Amino acid sequence: MPLTPEQLQDIQNARANPQPTLRAVSPGMEQHLYEAKPVLDHGFVRVIDYMGDDSAIVQAARVSYGAGTKHVSNDEGLIRYLMRHWHSTPFEMCEIKLHVKLPVFVARQWIRHRTANVNEYSARYSILDREFYIPRVEDLAAQSVVNNQGRGEALTGEEAERVLRYLKDDAGRAYDHYEEMISDEGQQGLARELARMNLPANIYTQWYWKVDLHNLFHFLRLRADSHAQYEIRVYADAICEMVKDWVPAAYGAFEDYRMGGVQLSGKGVEVLKRRLAGEAVTQETSGMSKGEWREFEGVFG
Amino acid sequence: MPLTPEQLQDIQNARANPQPTLRAVSPGMEQHLYEAKPVLDHGFVRVIDYMGDDSAIVQAARVSYGAGTKHVSNDEGLIRYLMRHWHSTPFEMCEIKLHVKLPVFVARQWIRHRTANVNEYSARYSILDREFYIPRVEDLAAQSVVNNQGRGEALTGEEAERVLRYLKDDAGRAYDHYEEMISDEGQQGLARELARMNLPANIYTQWYWKVDLHNLFHFLRLRADSHAQYEIRVYADAICEMVKDWVPAAYGAFEDYRMGGVQLSGKGVEVLKRRLAGEAVTQETSGMSKGEWREFEGVFG
Amino acid sequence: MPLTPEQLQDIQNARANPQPTLRAVSPGMEQHLYEAKPVLDHGFVRVIDYMGDDSAIVQAARVSYGAGTKHVSNDEGLIRYLMRHWHSTPFEMCEIKLHVKLPVFVARQWIRHRTANVNEYSARYSILDREFYIPRVEDLAAQSVVNNQGRGEALTGEEAERVLRYLKDDAGRAYDHYEEMISDEGQQGLARELARMNLPANIYTQWYWKVDLHNLFHFLRLRADSHAQYEIRVYADAICEMVKDWVPAAYGAFEDYRMGGVQLSGKGVEVLKRRLAGEAVTQETSGMSKGEWREFEGVFG
Amino acid sequence: MPLTPEQLQDIQNARANPQPTLRAVSPGMEQHLYEAKPVLDHGFVRVIDYMGDDSAIVQAARVSYGAGTKHVSNDEGLIRYLMRHWHSTPFEMCEIKLHVKLPVFVARQWIRHRTANVNEYSARYSILDREFYIPRVEDLAAQSVVNNQGRGEALTGEEAERVLRYLKDDAGRAYDHYEEMISDEGQQGLARELARMNLPANIYTQWYWKVDLHNLFHFLRLRADSHAQYEIRVYADAICEMVKDWVPAAYGAFEDYRMGGVQLSGKGVEVLKRRLAGEAVTQETSGMSKGEWREFEGVFG
Repeated sequence: MPLTPEQLQDIQNARANPQPTLRAVSPGMEQHLYEAKPVLDHGFVRVIDYMGDDSAIVQAARVSYGAGTKHVSNDEGLIRYLMRHWHSTPFEMCEIKLHVKLPVFVARQWIRHRTANVNEYSARYSILDREFYIPRVEDLAAQSVVNNQGRGEALTGEEAERVLRYLKDDAGRAYDHYEEMISDEGQQGLARELARMNLPANIYTQWYWKVDLHNLFHFLRLRADSHAQYEIRVYADAICEMVKDWVPAAYGAFEDYRMGGVQLSGKGVEVLKRRLAGEAVTQETSGMSKGEWREFEGVFG
Repeated sequence: MPLTPEQLQDIQNARANPQPTLRAVSPGMEQHLYEAKPVLDHGFVRVIDYMGDDSAIVQAARVSYGAGTKHVSNDEGLIRYLMRHWHSTPFEMCEIKLHVKLPVFVARQWIRHRTANVNEYSARYSILDREFYIPRVEDLAAQSVVNNQGRGEALTGEEAERVLRYLKDDAGRAYDHYEEMISDEGQQGLARELARMNLPANIYTQWYWKVDLHNLFHFLRLRADSHAQYEIRVYADAICEMVKDWVPAAYGAFEDYRMGGVQLSGKGVEVLKRRLAGEAVTQETSGMSKGEWREFEGVFG
Repeated sequence: MPLTPEQLQDIQNARANPQPTLRAVSPGMEQHLYEAKPVLDHGFVRVIDYMGDDSAIVQAARVSYGAGTKHVSNDEGLIRYLMRHWHSTPFEMCEIKLHVKLPVFVARQWIRHRTANVNEYSARYSILDREFYIPRVEDLAAQSVVNNQGRGEALTGEEAERVLRYLKDDAGRAYDHYEEMISDEGQQGLARELARMNLPANIYTQWYWKVDLHNLFHFLRLRADSHAQYEIRVYADAICEMVKDWVPAAYGAFEDYRMGGVQLSGKGVEVLKRRLAGEAVTQETSGMSKGEWREFEGVFG
Repeated sequence: MPLTPEQLQDIQNARANPQPTLRAVSPGMEQHLYEAKPVLDHGFVRVIDYMGDDSAIVQAARVSYGAGTKHVSNDEGLIRYLMRHWHSTPFEMCEIKLHVKLPVFVARQWIRHRTANVNEYSARYSILDREFYIPRVEDLAAQSVVNNQGRGEALTGEEAERVLRYLKDDAGRAYDHYEEMISDEGQQGLARELARMNLPANIYTQWYWKVDLHNLFHFLRLRADSHAQYEIRVYADAICEMVKDWVPAAYGAFEDYRMGGVQLSGKGVEVLKRRLAGEAVTQETSGMSKGEWREFEGVFG
């Protein structure tokens, strides 16, 4: 259960008091504000604030392109045009601020997206909570035998049990020792900034994360992708649900051009043209490497 | 007069329809929304949107520092502490979006601040308006004789008149020719992206500019400074007035620590200690260069 | 002729004195160092410094992926894999520093690429040279009648002559007045930071521009593209020639996957699958807008 | 012992083969290239590559300020002027690439500096080594009783022994289980990306980190500061030693203006002026908060 009664009370209070504003308001996003969407066993994502909506993207584009945007019949068409042609700046005109609770090993992947603002809970100043990510049995995936970074089938039986026992016992013991080391009862107590080094990477941390829509889409493209690690993908998926309600037209274009799209190389374009012209192309005659051909066939058969 | 009747009508409409939101609202900033503050002869700045307020800064800091922030008695004290100790991330949690109309030579300085989002009116797509910055007589400053980038006294008499005549005539002629070149009446018409090259740097452009509060403060520190060029300083001053109403506590701390503050070198600290101990220190015995000593004396006498 | 005798002498001196280094050296790039490649009528690009080579990309990737990179048979294959899968960080491990002389209206497009370091010649401090970009007759393109930002055929006859006359005369007169205004002979002289506002956008400026290879590729993808304005594309083309010699494997992958590649939407993938299965698909049955269909047909017929 | 025989052999090879280059060469930095400076018990920092030297800073500044820089008598004076007046772009024209081996909890602080390029060893792809940071007894600091993020005296006796035992035993056991979980002998073997979550924050990771000199100085100002956590400060100190040999003039200016300098608020300036005029100022009459006054007195007595 990720939220304390105090936190739930705070959310209820924040949601009870709408105030008038002259700014752009996204009704779909107002529904999500402050609500914590549970992710994994103790994590969550919640929207703290947002700026702009679909119209703000269009408005910014029309500043840039002036009369040049008039021929596009409507806002959705213009947004799709901008996405198709990699016009990034109008999407940067929307911004979102999230409160996320997540395991440290997920946070370490997430923070690699540099064009964002972050305030993370500091284990130098404060004491971490006793909360660890312990996967469900069905998520205890084996190492893939074909892909160094992939997952295979879920472990079963005794092997799965042993993994869960290790994860739970080691985390519990590490936290017991953490508490014991920082305790100032009958002793000096080790500095927090040192004691935390004993804690494993499945402990939960939390942060505020603020990012513009263009960079958020970049994050989602990589992290909601089927090759992303499951434990960060579930966060990306939860964010997708919010973005869909916040900027429906932009999200629709993102789904079509980025998530559902494919980047073809020059060689790939040539192969498709030859196949459309009736030629049977093989890897050997394609000019592609085996790896590239395998990926190409994965899409076009 | 920078705004057209249509623009004024748009502003009036936007301001007539407050909507309820659950987000943080800054009453001081709501007063400014959409209102164009005139700057120079045809320019303006107006707030299109904002995210967060003083409380949002405090809230983000408390996520980071947890219980570590409890000992600071109040929000303003915490904000001052954060500013004094160069904690930048909590200030990044506020964001502002401005619509600015400004001469191109000012835009060229402004754009050097890279950590911001921009949509500028495109002279490739669209036709620029016939609007040029022509300084007031009292702003026709002479080149400083002591400082390569500085200004001296204002020009007077015939010299001032000639400057104004040149600026007006050359701009007008350049624009006449611009119009004539792109005209498609009785001719093909030169591409806009080429014709614009004839226009001088005092023509007005406009853009949407979105930036977080930390980077905005950095911009204001450099551009509201007395050494900044007058024509960008007036924009920075206009923005300062808005920020003061948006995040009063943060702006107060910024004024005290950044605008009113001084960066002392190690040598400067030593000299002050010696002078406080009663010693008469000269440039020769200070270890400072002449330039540094002059600046030091400019502050402390 | 863009370079003064002094500059040519400097280049000759710099090239005359190779020094030993333990760093990675790219023999192909050493050939280009300091040599100014002429661009447009008075512009140039020259390499001032570089860091890394193809091996540096591979080396960085192997730090990240460790044993995971061993199965890729060779460096070129790994570089192609990284490019295909949008792994950007290994390409960021190479850096280049260029000295560029370019018209101001080109500089204004260029500077929008924010992830780079820039030192531009300052017209506040210093006096600009009397050098303006005047297009060749064959580059005096008409405004496209089908595309707001495009170019049509070149102007001819009297129309072309008039354009050239305007561009030359207006630039010359503006510069005469600039010189007259800043002159301190028999008068005070207007501040340089003000006088420059009279100068048109085809005057030349110059800067040092430093960027990592990943962001340079992004720049080249947009600016060496056939839709980019001709006057910036020629700079991008000149840089491509250097990059090809600097990091041949990375440049080859960039050409295949970025310059020669195509981004397909989900709808585009579906249409191709249907066509490969023998179905005749029209715009009406494609689910694409007219604009998207036109672009799709432009590639696949 | 942080380096394997293979790594030492690699370094020896790389250092044995100087090649000629036309680029700027810093003789002081060539001495450091590839040499691993030991930090903590298993960590190190080593320079992989660099771009530029003190002259490159001056050269870039002279591009910007043209004749405006001529009045500064020499390069060192100009560099000090640039540092004093917060001119950041000339310092961005130098770049450095480091290979760092460091505990994960240090890496988590380090990565917060976003304006840098990073390739980190991936525990999704590869298997981490059994190496953990175990502090020396004299570094086992107690939590400060006056400062939430500070350290007090070192622990002693039984308390210190227990801490060391916990750190060693927990790390060893976690790693045993990590190995056991990923083993594919007689079982499927848990995916590496999951098994790593059992490992504590004192395990070592490594990365390539590339940054420009301006941003490196910002990093060093915060991380070589006496308030930084000891375990990151030792890395910053090791880097300072290299930078001092790489760009001696810039490093000297950095030491004087940043490391040895003090940021005074407007209130602080006023108090100093009053004290220089003979007035005895107390916290009550200073207008400063207690915290600010304490810091002020810490410098000026």
